[in-house]
Amino acid sequence: MQYDRLPSTLLENAVSEFSRLPGIGRKSALRLALHLLKLDKEDVEQFGNAFIALRNEIQYCKVCHNISDTEVCSICSNKQRDRQTLCVVENIKDVMSVENTQQFNGLYHVLGGVISPMDGIGPSDLNVDSLVGRVAEDGVKEVILALSPTMEGDTTNFYIYRKLAGLNVEVSTIARGVAIGDELEYADEVTLGRSILNRTPFKESITK
Amino acid sequence: MQYDRLPSTLLENAVSEFSRLPGIGRKSALRLALHLLKLDKEDVEQFGNAFIALRNEIQYCKVCHNISDTEVCSICSNKQRDRQTLCVVENIKDVMSVENTQQFNGLYHVLGGVISPMDGIGPSDLNVDSLVGRVAEDGVKEVILALSPTMEGDTTNFYIYRKLAGLNVEVSTIARGVAIGDELEYADEVTLGRSILNRTPFKESITK
Repeated sequence: MQYDRLPSTLLENAVSEFSRLPGIGRKSALRLALHLLKLDKEDVEQFGNAFIALRNEIQYCKVCHNISDTEVCSICSNKQRDRQTLCVVENIKDVMSVENTQQFNGLYHVLGGVISPMDGIGPSDLNVDSLVGRVAEDGVKEVILALSPTMEGDTTNFYIYRKLAGLNVEVSTIARGVAIGDELEYADEVTLGRSILNRTPFKESITK
Repeated sequence: MQYDRLPSTLLENAVSEFSRLPGIGRKSALRLALHLLKLDKEDVEQFGNAFIALRNEIQYCKVCHNISDTEVCSICSNKQRDRQTLCVVENIKDVMSVENTQQFNGLYHVLGGVISPMDGIGPSDLNVDSLVGRVAEDGVKEVILALSPTMEGDTTNFYIYRKLAGLNVEVSTIARGVAIGDELEYADEVTLGRSILNRTPFKESITK
């Protein structure tokens, strides 16, 4: 079904704004816009203004570059956390993913992307200098690189590794291997090969 | 994966506003909110304001109750259309559905729902009086009832039929039957039974 002739330009505007969002087509956009028409005016104002406020007032933590409502984010200002271990991630969502594992009690450093010449993203577009600064000045003992296992991620890992050489810090990457719950026969050969090379003593794996 | 602890209340607000929309869960809402953070401030302002403007400035056509930017909608004010035939539909979306068939050149009347005692919707909540008024005053020759084939739709059809009795107007309903492209064995018995009772002369069906 086509909804190309809408009876109102106001509706047309709302529909085209909704369909600019990733994963929302014109048909869903129309359904969402008509849903808004059923809500109270105050609710729709709150709806629209929430996004404007988000974009205009959001701050980035001046230490780790995570999003925050304050100058320094709640993780960086938490005295309970291990300040000697930094986990380097690509973006804000990855911070949340690692936090959700509840396996990490250190601080983060959000790079803001990975080196990708194809997309015109070079090292200078990433928060690498501030990472080197933190390692040099804040007594960091270990940097955990938790970037995507792609060519771009690996390039960025290597770039950071070189940048940190000479500073007295241990650099590690998160383990690559067969995901828990996966069937072995469906694992790709690179992953499976890597997980054989980096095998863990069985004793170690049962205590974890 | 849970995203229950967001690092910012501004982000939290945007995510909870998105997740109030039908069919959007918390995970999609977060993806949408983070997408907005990547856009220009002007674009996000346009985004938020489109919905506020839609809700605050939308008008309903005073003739047919379809949404409109003007007092009388573009369909009602179109001189090319057949003013003697009215198609009665539940809502705005149904107007678009019928328009998309390109098989109808008359005017519409948007009821605003169907009679549904379970949801507390009675005849007085619907635009029935204005329909009767249009039929009585505007020289309407035929009213086509195009409501949903549900018990509520049928009740509403009957209510309108009774209200229009005595006025010199023909009342018809859209045909119920097996949908084009459907396999006969999967049609439910009520639909199939109805489509046998209301069979069309073959000659008529090939000329349409």
